Amino acid sequence: MSTLTLYSAPGTCAQATHIALLEAGAPFELVQLDFTQQAQRSAAYLALNPKGRVPALQTEQGLLTETPALLAYIAQRFPAARLAPLGDAFAFARLQEFNSYLASTVHVAHAHGRRGARWSDDAAAHDSMRAKVPQNMREAFAYIEAHYLPEGSDWALGQDYSVADAYLYTVTGWLPSDDVAIEEFPKVAAHYARMSARPAVQQALAQAKACTPRLL
Amino acid sequence: MSTLTLYSAPGTCAQATHIALLEAGAPFELVQLDFTQQAQRSAAYLALNPKGRVPALQTEQGLLTETPALLAYIAQRFPAARLAPLGDAFAFARLQEFNSYLASTVHVAHAHGRRGARWSDDAAAHDSMRAKVPQNMREAFAYIEAHYLPEGSDWALGQDYSVADAYLYTVTGWLPSDDVAIEEFPKVAAHYARMSARPAVQQALAQAKACTPRLL
Repeated sequence: MSTLTLYSAPGTCAQATHIALLEAGAPFELVQLDFTQQAQRSAAYLALNPKGRVPALQTEQGLLTETPALLAYIAQRFPAARLAPLGDAFAFARLQEFNSYLASTVHVAHAHGRRGARWSDDAAAHDSMRAKVPQNMREAFAYIEAHYLPEGSDWALGQDYSVADAYLYTVTGWLPSDDVAIEEFPKVAAHYARMSARPAVQQALAQAKACTPRLL
Repeated sequence: MSTLTLYSAPGTCAQATHIALLEAGAPFELVQLDFTQQAQRSAAYLALNPKGRVPALQTEQGLLTETPALLAYIAQRFPAARLAPLGDAFAFARLQEFNSYLASTVHVAHAHGRRGARWSDDAAAHDSMRAKVPQNMREAFAYIEAHYLPEGSDWALGQDYSVADAYLYTVTGWLPSDDVAIEEFPKVAAHYARMSARPAVQQALAQAKACTPRLL
């Protein structure tokens, strides 16, 4: 029996946590919520996770949410997988800085294209937010291209693969839906191709495809 | 000579990092940027921190940004201050989940009242975003009131004081400017009063008052 259950949904940031669990070699069960049926707002799911969002990770000690927290947790809980620089406070902070930027700036910029109702009740405002998404995503990825993915390294933070790479891969995958070509950012594009070839990523995609989204 | 320099500005989320440094007993220098002069967009500051935001913490190893990353870094770098449950991956993840929620949901909700230009070029849209801020802040603080600050504990995450308390104190302080009374949330209000009495908080307020905001 799995000790961990990941609540995910297709096309969401939960993919990053899914990849990280596979990279960690963690035993886990995958549950995919059917967002087309508003499964994340069902009474059963809200009882489990009152935020009504994914990802959520059920552990033996309780539920955990928020991608940056989950990624660091997986790295700390499965240290043998070496998914974060756990012994180096500065390097760990750089990883967390990157993940926090993806969560609170880049994911938020993307969300204005489809979740404008979170921040305004006016349909015209939603249209104007949607119109600005490509510009904001371009600015964010230009920042990532300039300040991460250092020359001579394959990975977001430098020498070693980390959970930040799974998160970057996931958010990069949203660019086409925001009318931004991944190829505008050559280092990001090479990273995306490199990630696509990793067994854990291919396994995550295959598991997500094989797991029918449902109500809880 | 200080080994750390905190770049802050009055009224910003950098206050949380400022309080955490004082709680940690860390040697640091405080620099306050004058946002009324757009000091965060000056060439000198952008050369240091291309994000053009605060907080930023200059360390011997380089610059760090993003409040959740900085708070965990301070807790890890000054472990004797016991500002996070460093030896318990689940408890640490709960703290990070809380900080990540404040950064990517609550701070973002607040920012729509004054930084709407980040997400729309339309002045009418900014007005509609501003109108929704009180509702979103109320929902976020109702969530915090219901799911954190457990009964019988003085602190956000339970038994022990942590960097999360400094962050909650800072974000709670924004509520009146969002037309939400702190007193609507009794546990949050009691926490705010408790924090206001802490020497580190009083010292942070005094230092901020004594440090003239400037261009870099």
